[in-house]
Amino acid sequence: MKFLCLAIGKKHDLAIAAATQDYTQRITRYVSCEWLILAPAKGRMSVDETKRTESAHILSCIKDDDYIVLLDEHGIQLSSEGLAELLDTLDMQAVKRIVCIIGGAYGVDEIVKKRANFVWSLSHLVFPHQLVRLILAEQLYRANTIRRGEPYHHQ
Amino acid sequence: MKFLCLAIGKKHDLAIAAATQDYTQRITRYVSCEWLILAPAKGRMSVDETKRTESAHILSCIKDDDYIVLLDEHGIQLSSEGLAELLDTLDMQAVKRIVCIIGGAYGVDEIVKKRANFVWSLSHLVFPHQLVRLILAEQLYRANTIRRGEPYHHQ
Repeated sequence: MKFLCLAIGKKHDLAIAAATQDYTQRITRYVSCEWLILAPAKGRMSVDETKRTESAHILSCIKDDDYIVLLDEHGIQLSSEGLAELLDTLDMQAVKRIVCIIGGAYGVDEIVKKRANFVWSLSHLVFPHQLVRLILAEQLYRANTIRRGEPYHHQ
Repeated sequence: MKFLCLAIGKKHDLAIAAATQDYTQRITRYVSCEWLILAPAKGRMSVDETKRTESAHILSCIKDDDYIVLLDEHGIQLSSEGLAELLDTLDMQAVKRIVCIIGGAYGVDEIVKKRANFVWSLSHLVFPHQLVRLILAEQLYRANTIRRGEPYHHQ
């Protein structure tokens, strides 16, 4: 099993980007984890056109047998233990790659929502995109430590 | 109205601390916001003794007329708009200071829970303390922009 974290966005605040990189590095002690940052759609476009363009780009990066987790405020919340259990289940199902998608400023098109295997809401709160990236990296790291019974989770 | 963010803890990852400082700086465009980081209890103590010592320290820093928000995973979740509404309400009630408390590694003693006016859970997820600080600063900033109808919230 490996992770691909796929985000539409710009380069971010260096401090938060460094912290995200740090957690990503820690995840790779357990499994491969890569980030792919896709550029936001450019040019004069309506919101719908932007979402369609960005969503086509997202879909071009994923494979048929990927398990897609879409981060969306209207999704289902998980506990950190719940995320670890989900990873356990996917591992038992021999899922090769889990792709976590963070959409652009306007979210993603319906076509990505339909392709998603799980729509995950981190919180009732709205976070800035850079913080979503950091939280995602930290939670994937945490879930891997939970799965191995390591002490990080109760620090 | 002003904010005091009160946390038990050590100095943290410099990158995340810098980002927290940045959001705190932005809050001060609207209202005063200070952080007070109290040292964790030292010495050989049981979990209960640690919580009691740290909680006594916390209580010594707050005033009778402070409105206390305790961050605790067993609390109630708010949306970002909900937080803005809570601040509006407290403003109308002429609350002078809101104190947001992030407990230590073992949480806080019952005495702080009883003193709390609101127990707030950021998410079903468990976050590391440094990330809780960052999220708190960002959400207080966000709530202030929502209250003033500024565009940040829909960035």
